[in-house]
Amino acid sequence: MPAYQPQDPDFADRVRESFARQSIMDLLGARMTRVEPGEVEIELPFRPDLCQQHGFFHAGVTSTIADSAGGYAGFSLFPAEASVLTVEFKVNLLAPADGEMLRAIGRVIKTGRTLTVTEAEVTVVKNGSARACAHMVQTLMCLEGRPDMPTAG
Amino acid sequence: MPAYQPQDPDFADRVRESFARQSIMDLLGARMTRVEPGEVEIELPFRPDLCQQHGFFHAGVTSTIADSAGGYAGFSLFPAEASVLTVEFKVNLLAPADGEMLRAIGRVIKTGRTLTVTEAEVTVVKNGSARACAHMVQTLMCLEGRPDMPTAG
Amino acid sequence: MPAYQPQDPDFADRVRESFARQSIMDLLGARMTRVEPGEVEIELPFRPDLCQQHGFFHAGVTSTIADSAGGYAGFSLFPAEASVLTVEFKVNLLAPADGEMLRAIGRVIKTGRTLTVTEAEVTVVKNGSARACAHMVQTLMCLEGRPDMPTAG
Amino acid sequence: MPAYQPQDPDFADRVRESFARQSIMDLLGARMTRVEPGEVEIELPFRPDLCQQHGFFHAGVTSTIADSAGGYAGFSLFPAEASVLTVEFKVNLLAPADGEMLRAIGRVIKTGRTLTVTEAEVTVVKNGSARACAHMVQTLMCLEGRPDMPTAG
Repeated sequence: MPAYQPQDPDFADRVRESFARQSIMDLLGARMTRVEPGEVEIELPFRPDLCQQHGFFHAGVTSTIADSAGGYAGFSLFPAEASVLTVEFKVNLLAPADGEMLRAIGRVIKTGRTLTVTEAEVTVVKNGSARACAHMVQTLMCLEGRPDMPTAG
Repeated sequence: MPAYQPQDPDFADRVRESFARQSIMDLLGARMTRVEPGEVEIELPFRPDLCQQHGFFHAGVTSTIADSAGGYAGFSLFPAEASVLTVEFKVNLLAPADGEMLRAIGRVIKTGRTLTVTEAEVTVVKNGSARACAHMVQTLMCLEGRPDMPTAG
Repeated sequence: MPAYQPQDPDFADRVRESFARQSIMDLLGARMTRVEPGEVEIELPFRPDLCQQHGFFHAGVTSTIADSAGGYAGFSLFPAEASVLTVEFKVNLLAPADGEMLRAIGRVIKTGRTLTVTEAEVTVVKNGSARACAHMVQTLMCLEGRPDMPTAG
Repeated sequence: MPAYQPQDPDFADRVRESFARQSIMDLLGARMTRVEPGEVEIELPFRPDLCQQHGFFHAGVTSTIADSAGGYAGFSLFPAEASVLTVEFKVNLLAPADGEMLRAIGRVIKTGRTLTVTEAEVTVVKNGSARACAHMVQTLMCLEGRPDMPTAG
């Protein structure tokens, strides 16, 4: 894995502040547990209202934290005055997401001026041991000159 | 589009009953608005707690209803005693999901004994007019002989 | 399907001229059989040297003509002074490509200034009847101001 | 990366024999340069008849060797009496494939009785130095009891 140099020294604050504005993360109960240049971790404890029909985490929930983990991994390397858009992502579901916590680690694979490619590994923790449950690959777009700002009140 | 013959005459009840057990749909506020052989529609009204950092529906939310719309489109053609697993899906995000309602229509592209391929079109309705915002392609697995049953209490 | 307005009235010549420079198409024996605004068809007759281990068209060959069909469908709507890059594509292989000819039809799903999304349906013709064998979804990038020119000799 | 235990001690011969029957590899000039349990490498020297319109390796050619590298990485872990089918794959094109050789390394991410997930990294070698040009993720299906045999003459 390459070590990335962030363009913005305040990248971690910028990432955490933007994540805090993703209201769906509050609804699900997800927290950002680590921010490094080009790598972000999100954790989501199990709740019975996050499930598909068999009582496991819904694949859409898995994808939601994978998308944000990959998206903010990319965003951490963007210039300060820029926004991030997800262009597309693909998720392979490797095993049922059966456990007490989901953990998504997003990492940048390739940076570019306009497009960035990331991947995310999602593991599910059951009885304290982690098991791979999803693998995501994602394309992001960097919108330069459009700060990812809170809307004025 | 081909017209599909369901193997199970009670497919619509089976689909709706299974969807009702997806607890995440209640949390998000999604409803299944149409079930036909090989085609399912899910709608999700806007709420401020379903958003990404700019106040639009989060791409993970869009993907959650697309995954279920595609998954139940496939499940509608399965035999009565079978479960459905999502193997993988890919979402292209065509436009920001900015509006008062999301609508996902899942359709079967190809049936097979083990694997089924579906696609879903997601539109966002703003001021009453619909606009394409996401396109999904998905692979499903049919687990025959494993009924998609509510767990005994 | 929407009807697209090409920006360049000479789009068909531009597409055919660029396709003629894709040397791999000659090697495989593929021909461009139709060019319309936002839609392109490529055909490839069977040859025993285009196969995977069971004697069917290799999935990579199927993907090659699907990628070009989608890419030129997008390129047909680009301005005259622009190049096209494939950002990513995904192929679902729906059935073995067993037959005497492959036909890929690429269509634009969504246009944008920078990114265009296309899909391609690939059918295989056997004993005169066509059967779906692959479905592709693709993201293209438009490089404005960089004409897709033959390199000067 | 996990170390995989092959089910068939003759996996390498079985892989190389099957690869030798992929006639498209001869046409392109690709060779299998390494076979390990769950990991396969394919190399393809540049030729002017493998190109897209700008004179680089065509994305379909890149995908062809990535598909086979991933497919045979999975096949190496299958039982002796089994065939492999590609269910789907996705390729992100990270940089133009501009160079004197392509190298695809396919690796198994997840094994399963029916489905196997792999990834492939494709690099392009230019003036002796390698650069990532494509990333693939792939789902394979194992057809047990159907030996991947040469057709009787």
